[in-house]
Formats: sequence, C-alpha cells, structure tokens
Amino acid sequence: MNKKITLAKRPVGLPGADTWNLSEEPVPQAKEGEAILKTSYISLDPAMRGWINDTRSYIPPVQIGEVMRAGTVGQVVESKNPDIKVGDYYTGWGGVQQYCVIADKGWHQVDPSLAPLPTYIGTLGMPGMTAYFGLMDVGQPKDGETVLVSGAAGAVGSIVGQIAKIKGCRVVGIAGGKDKCDHVVNELGFDACINYRTENVRKGIKQHCPDGVDVYFDNVGGDILDAALTRINRGARIPICGAISQYNSTEPKGPVNYLSLLVNRARMEGFVVLDYAKDFRTAAMEMGGWMMQGKLKSKEHIEEGIENFHETFLRLFSGDKLGKLVLKVD
Amino acid sequence: MNKKITLAKRPVGLPGADTWNLSEEPVPQAKEGEAILKTSYISLDPAMRGWINDTRSYIPPVQIGEVMRAGTVGQVVESKNPDIKVGDYYTGWGGVQQYCVIADKGWHQVDPSLAPLPTYIGTLGMPGMTAYFGLMDVGQPKDGETVLVSGAAGAVGSIVGQIAKIKGCRVVGIAGGKDKCDHVVNELGFDACINYRTENVRKGIKQHCPDGVDVYFDNVGGDILDAALTRINRGARIPICGAISQYNSTEPKGPVNYLSLLVNRARMEGFVVLDYAKDFRTAAMEMGGWMMQGKLKSKEHIEEGIENFHETFLRLFSGDKLGKLVLKVD
Repeated sequence: MNKKITLAKRPVGLPGADTWNLSEEPVPQAKEGEAILKTSYISLDPAMRGWINDTRSYIPPVQIGEVMRAGTVGQVVESKNPDIKVGDYYTGWGGVQQYCVIADKGWHQVDPSLAPLPTYIGTLGMPGMTAYFGLMDVGQPKDGETVLVSGAAGAVGSIVGQIAKIKGCRVVGIAGGKDKCDHVVNELGFDACINYRTENVRKGIKQHCPDGVDVYFDNVGGDILDAALTRINRGARIPICGAISQYNSTEPKGPVNYLSLLVNRARMEGFVVLDYAKDFRTAAMEMGGWMMQGKLKSKEHIEEGIENFHETFLRLFSGDKLGKLVLKVD
Repeated sequence: MNKKITLAKRPVGLPGADTWNLSEEPVPQAKEGEAILKTSYISLDPAMRGWINDTRSYIPPVQIGEVMRAGTVGQVVESKNPDIKVGDYYTGWGGVQQYCVIADKGWHQVDPSLAPLPTYIGTLGMPGMTAYFGLMDVGQPKDGETVLVSGAAGAVGSIVGQIAKIKGCRVVGIAGGKDKCDHVVNELGFDACINYRTENVRKGIKQHCPDGVDVYFDNVGGDILDAALTRINRGARIPICGAISQYNSTEPKGPVNYLSLLVNRARMEGFVVLDYAKDFRTAAMEMGGWMMQGKLKSKEHIEEGIENFHETFLRLFSGDKLGKLVLKVD
C-alpha cells in the first residue's frame, strides 16, 4: 500500500491538522517508460505553505485532493524504462507519499556513495540551489563585504552564510535560539549570529556589522527585514528568498523602512530557484567540491513517518528544528 | 533687504506654519570671486520634506536656523568673479530667499532664450534629471513594455511618462483628479491615466495595463505602491523615487505586497539623482532636443512671493497644483 498526504482544505493562518488527509491506496504500477520509486526522504520547506494558497504564484497551487507537493529522494523498486534501473536512487518532485511513478523528465539520478541521501534534497537540492543562486546571482557578494542572513540555521540560510564565507565576506547570521546561533558560529564558521528571540536585532546588527550590511539575504521578512533595512550600505542588495514570518499571518506586514532603499541606492529583488535549473548541475558540482574540502557542511533534522507529516511541517514555523527539515519514510 | 525662510523647528507630520521663520537681512555683499544672484524662481519639491527631518539620509538635514534648502534660478546683480557676468542667469541651490551668494562651484549658467526660466528648475533641472535617470538607469524600459507611473501630473512623473512614450512604451499614469488625468492624456500623450481619488487603482491598472506592468515608477508609496505590486510582470523594475503619501505620516506603512517581487523575480530599487551629476549635461541636451521637437512638454504651477512659501509648500501634499510647483520671487 502507498500512504500519502493529500490537501484536504486550504488553511487560513497556521495550518491545522485538518489541512491534510492521510490515506492509503495500492502502490501504483509502472506503465511502459515509467518506473516506481519508493520514497526514502521527503523535503519539508517553508515554500510549501505558499503552494497551498489559491493565489497566482510562480507555480500552480496544489489542488484540493492532490498529493501534497514536495521534493523527495528515493529508490527504484520497479522499472519499465530501460534507462532507469531498479536499485538506483533518484530525486525529484515525488510528493508526500511512500511511492511515486517516475519517468526521465524532472528526475535526476543521485549517488548515495558520494553524499548521504538527505543531502540531495538539502544542500545539493533545492535549498542549496536557492542559497547558491540567490546569493551569487542576486546578492552578488564581493570579497570583504558584509553579508547578513536571516534563518541562518535553516536549510537555505546555513548554506548562504557558508558560501559567503568561501567568497571572502564577513558573515553574520540571525537565528532563533542559542543552540542555533552556536551551531552557525562554531560549526559553520559564521563570524557572528544574533539570537532574535533574546537580543535586539537592530543593535545586534549594528554591533556585528560595524561596516554596515552589503548583502542582506532575507528568509523571514517582518521586523527582522525592517531592522536590516536600517543598517544597509550604499548599493546594498537584498535578495528576497522568503518571508516565513508572514506566511501564516492573516495581517501581513510590509517593510516599513523600505525607503532606506532610496537613501542608500539599494535594491530588494526577488528570485525563484527554478529559473536557474539549467545551471543546477554546475552549481551542485561546485558545492560538492566544497563539501569534500570540508568548507561546506550540511545539517539535517530528520523526523520519521508519513503519518507525522503535519507535526513535522509545523516545526518549520515554530523553529523547533536545527538545519534542513526532512521526513524519513519507513 | 533679503527676505528669507529659515527652518524654525522640525515638524511632526504635516508641517505647520511654525515650521518656518520669515525674516529679512541686508542683501549680502559679494567678496572676491563671488557674485550676488537675485532669485527669480524657487523649486518646491516633495523631497524638501525629508530634508527637514533629523535623520541620516543622502544629504545632511537642514539645520534649525538655516535657510531652507531649495533649487533656484536667478539673475546676477553684482559680481566680483570675472567668469560670472551681471545680467546672466544661473541655477543652483540658492535656498528659499530673495538673494544669494554664488561662486563657480555648484552653479550652472542657463540661457532664458532657449527655455523659460522655470524649466531650468523643472524639466531641465533636478525633477527632469530625476525622471530621466530613474527611468532610464533604474527602470530600463524596453520598446513595447508597459510603464506605470504615479504622481503622473507632477514634476517628475509627467517627464517619466513622456520619456517612456519616446522610448516606445505603453504609458499609464496615476494622478489625483480629473484635470490632472486629462492633462497627462490629452496634453502629454499618456495612453491612459487612473484618477486615484475616484477610481479603484487596482482595477484601473488591470484595465489599462492589459499586458501587466514592466516598470512601475513610484513617487507615492502607500496603497498605490501596493496596488501596482499586484500587477507587475516577471522581471519588473520598480524605481523608488519617493513616497509622498508617507512623508507626513507618523505611522508609515510598508508595501504589504512586496512578496510579489519574489513571485515575479522583480526588483524595487532606490536611487538619488545627485549620483548622476556628471551626466546631467548630456541628459539635459537630449531632453532639450525633445522639447524643441515638441515631444517633451513642461507644465509649471507658479505661485508668487517668499512670504507665501508655507502655503505653497503644502500644495505638494494636498495635490492642489498641476505640474511642477514653483515659487516666483518678486
């Protein structure tokens, strides 16, 4: 049987358990040209909150009754495609379920001997690509500049900071909790990290970014974005990667201090990682190289079981996790 | 005697009459290398509201007791500088006063036979340069794109729209009042204009920008910026020129819909016209050419008398004017 999570209703605010429906159906059969993948790990990302809103966005919303969209990595258990071998591992958009049908298109083979499987949906997957292209293409950090990143202990922010260090920047993180701040400074090599739960963020930025902020990589929006705007340098770049503080808000808030962009001739720019698909392979090779050299570290928080999807998903918003959030499938 | 307006106190919210002090002093005498300019016209601009706040900005705030900063154009009445002739006209930062001391630096001679004097502090002055560089360098309009501009009947917006037309764009304005909308469509050649006082701006944008918005040149901020954000195209550019709706607000509001930047891979970017000073001459020559060809029209709203500065200044915020606001000095 294939256990799966489908969208039961569109939530308002923080999704309740009734947002989802857990059901079972027979494992699908491969038709000619297809193969069946048994899911090993499911990627849980803040962007998923946006996909269940019925609004125009960069991809169509998940429809009521559809399997919840998610990046996955898994192993081939049956194949009627000569190019896809049983036993091999693939990553793609498998959704929140135990089995899925795959074909060549949109799926990429991965090698579990080169990196642990969860890394392929983390640092070498969408979150890693998001960090790489958002920082390099939109943020454009230069040697000696200061890069500030929120969600610093998360799947994207932790990679942004490490790449910025590799590029010769001073890197300051913002994260929620002493354990996260300690992790990004002691394990990932950030120069400093501000604990927004206990510190005044604006003062923290002033203290730890004495030369101002050249790139602020924003994963959170809200008050932290406003605090960052008060400390940007002339010509600063603010890649808008996400706004987790706003995703469940029924009264969303814009950056009140956005006129700092005018005063500082700075820009705030959005991006969508899917636009860089043709360059993913090159980026993953470069990042893989950094991982082998020990310059780029991955940290996953792994929970288990499709039936625990809802509780695990909520950890994205409560912050009760450290690193990339992954659901292991039995 | 030299009548002048100095800053009496820093206002909170909309400046009251007590913000300013009107006083007289003897007309200054030129020292060696200097000349005395009798002010003909004073430029009144929304940016002046920012200059009297005591906050870090792109230029130092006007200090209490100082003559209010303003662009001016005037005639030389006395000279002890061999390069500056009595009777010639100059433009520069003369401030809100009847006479000022000038030297070579920061002042530019203008020819009243080529264009009316107010044009040199309007279309061929800072507002025109702001329109030119904000649109061309930050907005980067391409032939066939749609350019939306707020404050469309104002000193900057009216020029932005006309340049965008010259560059082959569909141009839609947003302005406050039927007379202003009629002016920009019938006199200045905009394709359409939305009257934000009587129309639903979001619906108006949808109607008049059927292919979406590629460049939104923002002079106003607030709800209109939020409305524009809902209709931007992929890769849109939003030059942040000003935010007149926010300048007197004691509870400023950020753009709630800023995540549209993410979805649409768009950017919002601030700029300061002073950064383009070295290219002003080239731009003014190009714009002068367009004026001679009848492609670029100037409209000034002229009030008279230094003693009417305060009431005239308030017209910037009430919108009770049409075109570039100028104070004629007796």
